[in-house]
Amino acid sequence: MSDDSHVHCGTSNPVNDSAHTDGQPDLTALRASIAQAVRNVKDRTPLAQSFTNFVTINLVANAQLAAGGTAAMSFLPDDVIDTASISGADYINVGTLLPFYAEALPQIARAFHKSGHKWVLDPVAAGIGRTRTEILRAFRAAPPTIVRGNASEIIALTNMWGLAAVDGETSRPAGGESVDEVDAAVEPAKRLARFLADSAPEGKAAVAVSGAVDLVTDGERVYRLPGGSALMAKITGAGCSLGGVTATYLAVAEPLTAALAASLLYNRAAEVAEAKAEGPGSFQVHLLDALWNLTPEQVAASEILTY
Amino acid sequence: MSDDSHVHCGTSNPVNDSAHTDGQPDLTALRASIAQAVRNVKDRTPLAQSFTNFVTINLVANAQLAAGGTAAMSFLPDDVIDTASISGADYINVGTLLPFYAEALPQIARAFHKSGHKWVLDPVAAGIGRTRTEILRAFRAAPPTIVRGNASEIIALTNMWGLAAVDGETSRPAGGESVDEVDAAVEPAKRLARFLADSAPEGKAAVAVSGAVDLVTDGERVYRLPGGSALMAKITGAGCSLGGVTATYLAVAEPLTAALAASLLYNRAAEVAEAKAEGPGSFQVHLLDALWNLTPEQVAASEILTY
Amino acid sequence: MSDDSHVHCGTSNPVNDSAHTDGQPDLTALRASIAQAVRNVKDRTPLAQSFTNFVTINLVANAQLAAGGTAAMSFLPDDVIDTASISGADYINVGTLLPFYAEALPQIARAFHKSGHKWVLDPVAAGIGRTRTEILRAFRAAPPTIVRGNASEIIALTNMWGLAAVDGETSRPAGGESVDEVDAAVEPAKRLARFLADSAPEGKAAVAVSGAVDLVTDGERVYRLPGGSALMAKITGAGCSLGGVTATYLAVAEPLTAALAASLLYNRAAEVAEAKAEGPGSFQVHLLDALWNLTPEQVAASEILTY
Repeated sequence: MSDDSHVHCGTSNPVNDSAHTDGQPDLTALRASIAQAVRNVKDRTPLAQSFTNFVTINLVANAQLAAGGTAAMSFLPDDVIDTASISGADYINVGTLLPFYAEALPQIARAFHKSGHKWVLDPVAAGIGRTRTEILRAFRAAPPTIVRGNASEIIALTNMWGLAAVDGETSRPAGGESVDEVDAAVEPAKRLARFLADSAPEGKAAVAVSGAVDLVTDGERVYRLPGGSALMAKITGAGCSLGGVTATYLAVAEPLTAALAASLLYNRAAEVAEAKAEGPGSFQVHLLDALWNLTPEQVAASEILTY
Repeated sequence: MSDDSHVHCGTSNPVNDSAHTDGQPDLTALRASIAQAVRNVKDRTPLAQSFTNFVTINLVANAQLAAGGTAAMSFLPDDVIDTASISGADYINVGTLLPFYAEALPQIARAFHKSGHKWVLDPVAAGIGRTRTEILRAFRAAPPTIVRGNASEIIALTNMWGLAAVDGETSRPAGGESVDEVDAAVEPAKRLARFLADSAPEGKAAVAVSGAVDLVTDGERVYRLPGGSALMAKITGAGCSLGGVTATYLAVAEPLTAALAASLLYNRAAEVAEAKAEGPGSFQVHLLDALWNLTPEQVAASEILTY
Repeated sequence: MSDDSHVHCGTSNPVNDSAHTDGQPDLTALRASIAQAVRNVKDRTPLAQSFTNFVTINLVANAQLAAGGTAAMSFLPDDVIDTASISGADYINVGTLLPFYAEALPQIARAFHKSGHKWVLDPVAAGIGRTRTEILRAFRAAPPTIVRGNASEIIALTNMWGLAAVDGETSRPAGGESVDEVDAAVEPAKRLARFLADSAPEGKAAVAVSGAVDLVTDGERVYRLPGGSALMAKITGAGCSLGGVTATYLAVAEPLTAALAASLLYNRAAEVAEAKAEGPGSFQVHLLDALWNLTPEQVAASEILTY
């Protein structure tokens, strides 16, 4: 979809890929569920709570509001756990860590796991810093419903959780800037999604890999979502706010549908914004306007490639 | 005035209400004092310091600058208390709490109380989380000069401080999204304002309730301020930044005048911005421009309903 | 260049000064190195990491991206030090301090000093608060490569580090709002730059003083950079984001060149933005667009006054 080349919510360079065609029978039902998710958010204004980095926290909230939801941001475990009782899903992003997060984040994840509360993890900069690694490792015992990241982050998390194939995948961390291509993350993403699904109360989970062509999988099926804009790399928070909006959709839809709906909304909004922008400042303004103005039908009619 | 449906600075849905007329003799003097407050800020660029949440801290500062003041944001007690010696008033917002706030915020409130320093409290998400409740309870012994919140927050704080009527008012917290109407908060707001005035060095205080029609009271008189825009609900920080601008006006005016001037400025700016916006992204840009461009006369000429 | 009248990244009022002419022979080489620095950033997208205040952290990242670099923001020492191994330079801003910074910031500065890692210090609100003073004093033993601040901050830091002339310079702190003129900071800035250069691995450093006419010095030569816009004072983070972009240029250029390139880029961008803006909201949008659109040649052709 998109690209923001830095530690907070890594993605990688978009390149259009229309070598594949869709039209498979199952996409009709999928498109209907995507349209319904977008519509449900606009109709019900669901609350999704975020524990996220300080760089892009404002854009996460504004994007969730622009998509039609509502936002609440908290960091204290008592606050987060209390608010989770009224939020449809949560979003956790491990950027800009503070010392107390080392205890707070695993505690919150365990509380969500115990109550079956759905949440989206953004494993920003996975592989950098001892504290981040400890936190991400701890999440293995109380896993999220959806993981969204760039290829490098997905590969790093999969390795960290011991889910790598016998022959192993390797990746080098590079801030939030992905140094791996989405293709390299297909198998790790599928294994990660199956692991998440095995832990999920309803047995359903998804992994979204942002990149040249976004990839979304529930562990079985793999969807690729072409489009977006290279300007997504030139504003901070494109990936983070996509993660937040994924949680907004997760509040009203199943994980696969939520991940697809959010990524498609972002790709379409980025294209609208790019056509109007004169640079990254105006691009962000138009992006928020487009998140607000796009219809459920426009989002659901997006190109979706299957393999 | 406004509405942002989330934990950071709750408000509720605007509905125009022009069933009442003004023209009462006392409004002439009030309008003059409102115009003077707006003018004083533009002429003197007063500093108002904020201790506020991380989601909307940037918008709070930018709104204070756009209104004509200057901004300083701090969290360490030694920093806040030192800076308060050069700030005309302070703004405290209890969103996105960190662990050390449980000690820091009561310490800061006591220092302000001891020195007679004026401040505005935004009791965001009052009722959610044990730590927030402890902090808000502690403020009772060192109260602010102005409280600004949505109806649910005002009712929750009034109950928390034991100021409820004998028959009690009840409210359910719902993040920052008000689930109570402004009308339900009239009596709690008046009692709260009288309590604040009793503690204030000069015996003057105010309470502002954001909602369909904003309500401002000094404990005796009640003013209702129609107008604003539904798009205020679709950007994060409308309520918080209104709280910050209230502190900017409090640096140069009496509490009742400051609360009225800030709410009227926001309602007018929201209307200007809505007319130009193509969505929430451009709405926020136009809102800041309008805060900057509105004149003291335009703000003071606003419709003000009395009862 | 600029002006944002508050604690986060103080500057002071711009006034155009074209009483001096340039054309000195050494400026040709300097202009070539400035153009090269701007071009290098656009070509190489260098990573500059920031430890900065919460108010303007988003604008710092977006400005670095708009200038062509990439951004990473961190606060935990293990995270910052790990990320520094892949960042070309760092930016440290001492606004919005949290308690753990008192230990973390000196630890990070020592690690940078030990590894010879280049960094830019923004001594925001120098002179306010005991904790800030302790941190800034600690930096004397592990100094930055560039200091950027307003005149009051530069004078305060110079005094704090015992670098004042025998007859002393005095300054009163006033939040981030400079109460001293740039002229008063010429000698302190030169002494500070020489002290930094003596500590620098390659013996090169710079000090940038933001004000009516910006001043940049390497301890020997002094350059003044007229222009900019008074609207810089009406958005929060003009100075902070200039500091962040200075770090971006420092990742690919020598300190003097980096400081000049960043200040010139900002002055030109501010002028473009002012011509298009209808207030501070649209000014910030146009500023980011202009940072993105200005060419190396446009930046390098700026008026530069020498003495």
